[in-house]
Amino acid sequence: MSLRLIDSLATTEPLADAFSDAALLTAMLRFEVALARAEARVGVIPAAAAEAIVAAAVPDAFDPAAIARTARASGTTVIPFVEMLTENVRAIDPSAATFVHWGATSQDVSDTALVLCLVRALAIITADGDRLEHALRRTSDRHAGSAMLARTLLQPAPPTTFGLKAAGWYGAASRGRARLASAFRDACVAQFGGASGTLAALGPYGLAVSTELSRELDLLSTDAPWHAHRDRLAWLVAACGTYTGTLGKIARDVALLMQYEVAEAAEPGGGSSTMPHKRNPAGCAVALAAATRVPGLVSAFLSGLPQEHERGLGGWHAEAATVASVVQATGAALAAVADVIETLSVDPDRMRDNITATRGVVFAERAMVLLAPVVGRKTASRLIADAIETARRGDRTFAEALGESTEVTAAVDGADLSSLQDPDAYLGVAERFRRRLLGGEE
Amino acid sequence: MSLRLIDSLATTEPLADAFSDAALLTAMLRFEVALARAEARVGVIPAAAAEAIVAAAVPDAFDPAAIARTARASGTTVIPFVEMLTENVRAIDPSAATFVHWGATSQDVSDTALVLCLVRALAIITADGDRLEHALRRTSDRHAGSAMLARTLLQPAPPTTFGLKAAGWYGAASRGRARLASAFRDACVAQFGGASGTLAALGPYGLAVSTELSRELDLLSTDAPWHAHRDRLAWLVAACGTYTGTLGKIARDVALLMQYEVAEAAEPGGGSSTMPHKRNPAGCAVALAAATRVPGLVSAFLSGLPQEHERGLGGWHAEAATVASVVQATGAALAAVADVIETLSVDPDRMRDNITATRGVVFAERAMVLLAPVVGRKTASRLIADAIETARRGDRTFAEALGESTEVTAAVDGADLSSLQDPDAYLGVAERFRRRLLGGEE
Amino acid sequence: MSLRLIDSLATTEPLADAFSDAALLTAMLRFEVALARAEARVGVIPAAAAEAIVAAAVPDAFDPAAIARTARASGTTVIPFVEMLTENVRAIDPSAATFVHWGATSQDVSDTALVLCLVRALAIITADGDRLEHALRRTSDRHAGSAMLARTLLQPAPPTTFGLKAAGWYGAASRGRARLASAFRDACVAQFGGASGTLAALGPYGLAVSTELSRELDLLSTDAPWHAHRDRLAWLVAACGTYTGTLGKIARDVALLMQYEVAEAAEPGGGSSTMPHKRNPAGCAVALAAATRVPGLVSAFLSGLPQEHERGLGGWHAEAATVASVVQATGAALAAVADVIETLSVDPDRMRDNITATRGVVFAERAMVLLAPVVGRKTASRLIADAIETARRGDRTFAEALGESTEVTAAVDGADLSSLQDPDAYLGVAERFRRRLLGGEE
Amino acid sequence: MSLRLIDSLATTEPLADAFSDAALLTAMLRFEVALARAEARVGVIPAAAAEAIVAAAVPDAFDPAAIARTARASGTTVIPFVEMLTENVRAIDPSAATFVHWGATSQDVSDTALVLCLVRALAIITADGDRLEHALRRTSDRHAGSAMLARTLLQPAPPTTFGLKAAGWYGAASRGRARLASAFRDACVAQFGGASGTLAALGPYGLAVSTELSRELDLLSTDAPWHAHRDRLAWLVAACGTYTGTLGKIARDVALLMQYEVAEAAEPGGGSSTMPHKRNPAGCAVALAAATRVPGLVSAFLSGLPQEHERGLGGWHAEAATVASVVQATGAALAAVADVIETLSVDPDRMRDNITATRGVVFAERAMVLLAPVVGRKTASRLIADAIETARRGDRTFAEALGESTEVTAAVDGADLSSLQDPDAYLGVAERFRRRLLGGEE
Repeated sequence: MSLRLIDSLATTEPLADAFSDAALLTAMLRFEVALARAEARVGVIPAAAAEAIVAAAVPDAFDPAAIARTARASGTTVIPFVEMLTENVRAIDPSAATFVHWGATSQDVSDTALVLCLVRALAIITADGDRLEHALRRTSDRHAGSAMLARTLLQPAPPTTFGLKAAGWYGAASRGRARLASAFRDACVAQFGGASGTLAALGPYGLAVSTELSRELDLLSTDAPWHAHRDRLAWLVAACGTYTGTLGKIARDVALLMQYEVAEAAEPGGGSSTMPHKRNPAGCAVALAAATRVPGLVSAFLSGLPQEHERGLGGWHAEAATVASVVQATGAALAAVADVIETLSVDPDRMRDNITATRGVVFAERAMVLLAPVVGRKTASRLIADAIETARRGDRTFAEALGESTEVTAAVDGADLSSLQDPDAYLGVAERFRRRLLGGEE
Repeated sequence: MSLRLIDSLATTEPLADAFSDAALLTAMLRFEVALARAEARVGVIPAAAAEAIVAAAVPDAFDPAAIARTARASGTTVIPFVEMLTENVRAIDPSAATFVHWGATSQDVSDTALVLCLVRALAIITADGDRLEHALRRTSDRHAGSAMLARTLLQPAPPTTFGLKAAGWYGAASRGRARLASAFRDACVAQFGGASGTLAALGPYGLAVSTELSRELDLLSTDAPWHAHRDRLAWLVAACGTYTGTLGKIARDVALLMQYEVAEAAEPGGGSSTMPHKRNPAGCAVALAAATRVPGLVSAFLSGLPQEHERGLGGWHAEAATVASVVQATGAALAAVADVIETLSVDPDRMRDNITATRGVVFAERAMVLLAPVVGRKTASRLIADAIETARRGDRTFAEALGESTEVTAAVDGADLSSLQDPDAYLGVAERFRRRLLGGEE
Repeated sequence: MSLRLIDSLATTEPLADAFSDAALLTAMLRFEVALARAEARVGVIPAAAAEAIVAAAVPDAFDPAAIARTARASGTTVIPFVEMLTENVRAIDPSAATFVHWGATSQDVSDTALVLCLVRALAIITADGDRLEHALRRTSDRHAGSAMLARTLLQPAPPTTFGLKAAGWYGAASRGRARLASAFRDACVAQFGGASGTLAALGPYGLAVSTELSRELDLLSTDAPWHAHRDRLAWLVAACGTYTGTLGKIARDVALLMQYEVAEAAEPGGGSSTMPHKRNPAGCAVALAAATRVPGLVSAFLSGLPQEHERGLGGWHAEAATVASVVQATGAALAAVADVIETLSVDPDRMRDNITATRGVVFAERAMVLLAPVVGRKTASRLIADAIETARRGDRTFAEALGESTEVTAAVDGADLSSLQDPDAYLGVAERFRRRLLGGEE
Repeated sequence: MSLRLIDSLATTEPLADAFSDAALLTAMLRFEVALARAEARVGVIPAAAAEAIVAAAVPDAFDPAAIARTARASGTTVIPFVEMLTENVRAIDPSAATFVHWGATSQDVSDTALVLCLVRALAIITADGDRLEHALRRTSDRHAGSAMLARTLLQPAPPTTFGLKAAGWYGAASRGRARLASAFRDACVAQFGGASGTLAALGPYGLAVSTELSRELDLLSTDAPWHAHRDRLAWLVAACGTYTGTLGKIARDVALLMQYEVAEAAEPGGGSSTMPHKRNPAGCAVALAAATRVPGLVSAFLSGLPQEHERGLGGWHAEAATVASVVQATGAALAAVADVIETLSVDPDRMRDNITATRGVVFAERAMVLLAPVVGRKTASRLIADAIETARRGDRTFAEALGESTEVTAAVDGADLSSLQDPDAYLGVAERFRRRLLGGEE
């Protein structure tokens, strides 16, 4: 298995597999096979050579550990890999060995192999993204009318609905995934430029081989090789960073709602090694961990962009580990948040109780809206401050305290006062915003 | 002037102005004026109140230093600003003071004001971006035939053309700017949600006011307030990061070409305080400095994305300084690189001399392509290694050394050998790639 | 004033002053004055020249805006600055103009000037650090016996004391400040190496001038110039990052305790522009904003470390803005947290109420410790799970529910059961740890 | 083997082993064994239980893949690990199963296990650090007299010596390692606090068990548990970042010196998959890759510092993967740079040739020092500019051109002029600085 203890919270098993030795080796072999076939088809190498290369490209015939071990000596895994492949081809057909990796450079292989791993990762992320968005829409619809405290700067504010909150999560999650999908599409292109990015070794056949190669790999090709222009990969990494930030935001909200003192929503969570009573927000922890780690990884990638000349030194060599970490962390956060939302328990009664527990002070803004146009803002401020003070002492609610002031009752209709603390009557256009976010209203 | 010594290399004067106290104060006043007008039009506040607010919204009547000084006490510049505005309105029309900032929350002001500054910055960046791309196209066209050493891992490789190199810069620069423009477009939207993001204080008029407000500010509005969903700003920041990486890549290439020992291209550069002979790549330094700083700033922004509930604590408060730094650094790099390319001197003769100075060894790959199909890769490797060794000793060129081997002359046509070291004969599809990158060929 | 609106939450007024144009210009002049005096004393330049330089070095005779505006052309503020100084000296004594900046390089000036600003910043940070640590000790001592819920993964756990929590903050804050002080000490050294870091222009007098220069500036000198070795500054920046992380931890804890639903402690906080009832944790917001921004800035600095040869290109040019931002953000966080702790209101009764509100389930671990050795872990787990379930239904407390099981009463002493939910009886060595953290016990 | 293809350039085999599943599992078992022994010794658990735990703690009896797979459900590897251990103990002695992990919390295990891995990594890093510093000293001594161009902003400057350059590398490398060693020392402490950091489950025996536990593990203990105070680990990570920056600086210098056009020094390097003539700076690539990646990882760690209350959510969960990546990348860079310096070939003749190739213009500062005090700076500037212009045209050297001016010959001694371009005569105090950096002179 490719999942390791040290980063077991930073990936998922399918994503760990997508960047495993087996996956990477297979991808490198796919490149060499596709190259041989493309070159044979175009007539650059003999058909028999291509056949021998295809026959030799059996993953089991390679020792990834040996490749990994010698990679540092040449600064790339490709050189030991190509040597191994050449020997394996030679064993099948000595004359074919000449045509292994014909006209390609190491970076053509490693970049394209990374892209092939990314294609695989995207499929996993897409499935979990669908799952999350579906669960968020359902949650939002179900709780369209569940009034709850808005909280700003971690302090209670006038009510919102849990439906709107979930719709806000949905909006950001779907924007994030759209960016990610677009960035993957742009980045998942074949790399093929040869030693200097001119395909000179292929003479007049460079473009033809390039076209066939991409077709074999089911990848798009670009206008030109991108050996030292890594902006498309950077954009993919940045899209992961932005998406993971949104996933972290959802996780933080859930974890805060799940506090014992708040208790408005909860993921099933995980247990504790020592405290039998505990239910820990383990899914939120995984997502928040990713949201903590990924920004730095994005920075690491971007720092490497100024790569020297036709193929850089160091910047490029820093990428593979970073890209793999970013994509896995993003996918781990996504899977965790999808699980959290799919299994989220929500307590609308507790939400209303928490509004009530403020004794109405969160409706002070509403009182201001009623009073200020009549008595002026300064007087209104004084009256409201007094009522807040009374409510905080705990004897009466904010509305009751207001109602005891003749200045207030002279200015405000009794009905307005009696419904002042009704959450459902002070939700503004929450439902309109909710539906817009879900795309149901223009 | 808003340009400061400490970050004089990290911005330009126009961009420093775009985020200056005057700019920010003006933007905050524009929000309050637009809000008052919108609310008067919809009928939420009296027309007279709006007129008083418009009359009071004169930048000179505000003391940005006083606002800045008290901002930390409330965690926002908006509270002291609104207090000042309210007093100024009161002096004009006491009854109008009630309706200042009506129904808005602090973050509505600060977010929209930041967006208005960004709109201004985008115009500056667009002009410099046009300038850069124009200069790159011109440079690429002019040097379509200027053969030069490709360099990979900072070592000489078979030739490319300076035209292709400049076209690669162009491709990445234009992709980067397209991303930036798109991200600015998405992010430059008004913010208006009121205390809890429901516009509850405006009763049934929330959406109408919101629409009018955006129109007044000449901004698009979004589906819903984005107080705690900062992904659009994150995307803008990430676009800056990716673009700056490309600008850094161009700068690094130029600085390397400008080394005394290479001397293939040079920016006019700046002088030295102590060395009369020196011409420093000052423009490249500015761009590389930005490419060094911006990735960390991107990380700083992304780290703040998991913002709590309806309006967060800390994450949001970290943004303004970061966004301003990122956009200014990006614009500083862009202006510097545009200057560098517009004034770049290129020495095609030196480029060819540097190819010649390798004594032909960079054509070893070409020799391999000729020899290996005939004599096999192993024999070809031995023959080429011997010739490289001879060329390195300095007596003969690589091609001459090869020509002394009967094994070679038996295998390879004499004409091929005599043109082996001709750069123009080993450029592959460089020109095709170049034209594709410039968009001139599908 | 040097405080700006855009980063008014990211600095304090004294720290903004420490990196202002005036401060930086003064520091640059101090370098040139000290250099002239040192060189006159050693006999490298005429005494009269030094006198003219001293006379000309009047900040008011310089235009920082003009310097800032031209800095980008040469990649440094020092070249226009030295030109201006030279002209000013020439006006006083033409022959002295020759000896301005004699033997120094631009970076000698800019690095030393930055160091002089840092020395000033350190004094500010030291005072606030003392203030914070004093307040933390006092808070810890006062609440040595204030039992409260520990919270792990944001879920309630067996009790701790607020005294221990505050002592934990103290321990980390004092470790952080010790690192910071040590790193400032190492980094605040003069820079003086001349064009190539050999002081060649001073012939045999290089070391003597260097020694005198440091003495004039009241700075230590190092073994050698550090033009391209920025590890000492990096270490200072990293120390800021680590310290700010701890300040952010304190702020996050306070903000969480200040939630309406928790209400165990609160900073006085700031008001809201629209919600009269609100008290926002503004100080915590400032500190958390710094803890969000600074890590990326640290990364930005570290990314620039691989600087080329004797003086680098870009990496060095990226530093000043970054260092100034980091130190200001750190100081802003520190001042905010010091204010928060000095004015923190703590509610020990509410702390106990919140323990009680768990109905005893947080003592499940304690029940396990009592039961498991007698009945085995599996049986104990079952008994405890049942009691938790009963307590969660709300009829009885956890201890009452346990007491109804004959299996439990047979195994556990009645007295143990009746005190099971006594917070003071299950605090372990909290007080010992507290005193150790405060340094009162070995 | 624990080395993987995807990050084969980002670690070394011994370091990959230090964080492998086997290493981590062994470390977790060491904690549980030490805890059991400590508790038995103090009398908290029966001696027989401890014996059973010791007997069961056999790595081969555990399935790391199964642990990794279930870790996400609980947010930690420790819960499935402890369950597995408990079952294994139960199989040996059912009554002992009760006392597995007695009084500890998950984080006690995972933190201490990470520390034990770090201890192992430090030994590897120490050996390579010694190797590097030894090689740098030797290189510096050998080339104390090897004059070479200093290069500032990638442009030629007056000469320095390769001995001083290498001594500068040595100074930074040894400072970096001293910081690293000190930070490791501080961070490599046991973690033991139990559920809430009070060791309440151990009653009066908490401190005694803690002391014994540390002794068993051969670790120091701290004043108190550090579950949510991660500053010591942050400092270690920051020390890695600073050290890696220096290693990247050395690598960048070597890679630049190794350019074909410069050719002053070279690592043996690695070959190319397609270009037989190439020798790539593979060791430099590995080190520069680390210097590119690590700053972002440092940022990722620091971002996680504000951890909630007694044990945080997300911040802590993000650490293990980050710490392991940072330490491995640092060690990979170190091993690579040690190899590079140990095998560096240096060409002092080429160094002198490159000085000569400037035709003396790098001695313009020296001419200024001679001329300006006599003829004034303005006249000197003109004379020097003319001579530089002549030298650049290529007819004569700078000194020859100067010598043709009667203004010059009237002002400057002929001997001074004839030795003007002698590198050895213009090295200032390079040798003094060199010896200071190596510690040989106060």
